[in-house]
Amino acid sequence: MGASALPRLAVTAGEPAGIGPELLIRLAATPLAANFVAITDRTLLQRAATRCGLSIELIDDDGGALYERRPGTLRLRHVPLAMEEIPGQPDPRNAHHVLATLAEAADGCMGGRYDAIVTAPLQKSSINEAGIRFSGHTEFFAERAHADVVMMLASPQLRVALATTHLPLAAVPAAITHESLTRTLRIVHAELRAKFSLLQPRIAVLGLNPHAGEGGHLGREEIDTVIPVLDALRSEGMQLIGPLPADTAFVPAQRERYDAVLAMYHDQALPVLKSEAFDRTVNLTLGLPFIRTSVDHGTALDLAGSGRGDPASLIAAATMAMELVAHL
Amino acid sequence: MGASALPRLAVTAGEPAGIGPELLIRLAATPLAANFVAITDRTLLQRAATRCGLSIELIDDDGGALYERRPGTLRLRHVPLAMEEIPGQPDPRNAHHVLATLAEAADGCMGGRYDAIVTAPLQKSSINEAGIRFSGHTEFFAERAHADVVMMLASPQLRVALATTHLPLAAVPAAITHESLTRTLRIVHAELRAKFSLLQPRIAVLGLNPHAGEGGHLGREEIDTVIPVLDALRSEGMQLIGPLPADTAFVPAQRERYDAVLAMYHDQALPVLKSEAFDRTVNLTLGLPFIRTSVDHGTALDLAGSGRGDPASLIAAATMAMELVAHL
Repeated sequence: MGASALPRLAVTAGEPAGIGPELLIRLAATPLAANFVAITDRTLLQRAATRCGLSIELIDDDGGALYERRPGTLRLRHVPLAMEEIPGQPDPRNAHHVLATLAEAADGCMGGRYDAIVTAPLQKSSINEAGIRFSGHTEFFAERAHADVVMMLASPQLRVALATTHLPLAAVPAAITHESLTRTLRIVHAELRAKFSLLQPRIAVLGLNPHAGEGGHLGREEIDTVIPVLDALRSEGMQLIGPLPADTAFVPAQRERYDAVLAMYHDQALPVLKSEAFDRTVNLTLGLPFIRTSVDHGTALDLAGSGRGDPASLIAAATMAMELVAHL
Repeated sequence: MGASALPRLAVTAGEPAGIGPELLIRLAATPLAANFVAITDRTLLQRAATRCGLSIELIDDDGGALYERRPGTLRLRHVPLAMEEIPGQPDPRNAHHVLATLAEAADGCMGGRYDAIVTAPLQKSSINEAGIRFSGHTEFFAERAHADVVMMLASPQLRVALATTHLPLAAVPAAITHESLTRTLRIVHAELRAKFSLLQPRIAVLGLNPHAGEGGHLGREEIDTVIPVLDALRSEGMQLIGPLPADTAFVPAQRERYDAVLAMYHDQALPVLKSEAFDRTVNLTLGLPFIRTSVDHGTALDLAGSGRGDPASLIAAATMAMELVAHL
């Protein structure tokens, strides 16, 4: 039997002045059996390696297969910086560089050049300061792929998808509609099947209100929206549990009942996930025509340049991408 | 040295048809060094003991001190049932009995006959069906004591106070006002000093919106309400941290920074607490002129009568009440 080629993972460095480039160096130093293709500037990575006190061997990516990767080596797809980075000080003149790395990663996945994308953190405000309308990685990839997407955060213990993401709390109830909830659940269900090999995924859906509304005493959204949507989708064969009260949905006996949770909003479930697995939490985008995982932290501008950024979350994101590629 | 008298804890049985009476029998069977005074019907407890397969010795409470308690014994303040209970089937004709036990416990604490109250779960709907306006233990005690109160849930790892409790999610933002938040923080601060012996308590306050509003991009309540309230109270000397993003507020490094968290609403923090310490979570009422702890579960009507109800939460509530009495 011949050895099989390593999965080809496009890894973007995110904000050049953040900890992303250093995290890529730390990732390269691991023995993870993946063909990591760094999509960023060559000299940026070389300077990051120096800051980490590590050596890095960068090999121009020729698109060929790789069967083994030595720690300390990375394939490179060079995308030049506009300005040399100053760690801790994002420069809006590099905004187009950052977007070009994302575009290359997405187009490369859709063109079959990469099996998945792993993203380091970027600085949204710096891209906005360059006069570019930009909401984040997730929205960028969704637009590039013309896809409806759902944000999922996953740790080794728990998968949480979000019905709404970065909205003011006051805007959440109106954003949970029959249509939006149906679309979200269809994506989560399809992706648990397609990407997680769960043929009959069991999805627990949280109520919007405390105690899942307590029969209408604490809000009517469960009765008016959530329950009818669940009933309609159950009749199509989906295995849906709930709506469950959020406060008890994560106790051990409940966790055995589901493969993933759909939370109605950001702070209903992410505190649980992060409190128990902060540096092993991975952000995944469901609904794209490719696999995309991400760190679940920011650019840590105060640490950038020190070589002391913790690569645990990027390693977790890369590991999850490798697992998902293996499931395909 | 003479032995000191055991703390006198009034323990109410809650709904006669729920698991409360059986939990009192299980509590009595422990070696906990407290003078438990069961406030309920004598024959109800005797039947509950039979269902548990345990013997119970009930001693009419004469108000005297107790220096040692044998497991299997309980002092009793007899409050007669109106109707014999049928486990699993609450009878509204016993609603006045339930309220009479709460009144005796509260008045007894305020009159110096008990040091604290520990409550087993009651069935709110059954009391309402009797035509009585009643929202729960917490509100009953607050009204009886003419006090402003705050609900706190606590485990051995974490204390969480709530700025709002059982409200529809859509009603939460408007309920967080300058006045309500100030009042709540004053109560939490005063009670951490008075009842927890924390002379300079450190309170972490969560933002209302995801990422604590992200500088106004995800909601303005932090800027308009939360931050001004915190600044005003800091100038009085309170140690307040935040507003913190809820999703990262419970990671280990953050927990070292505070003694308690004030969450803005029910599902922002209780999922964390219950997922890690479900049967050790205790409900406390802050602001009362006495100590009151409670189980944090319901009447479990499906289990009532089986003798199989888990007393862990009632034991945790009693233990916390004993600790708080010792702090006074």
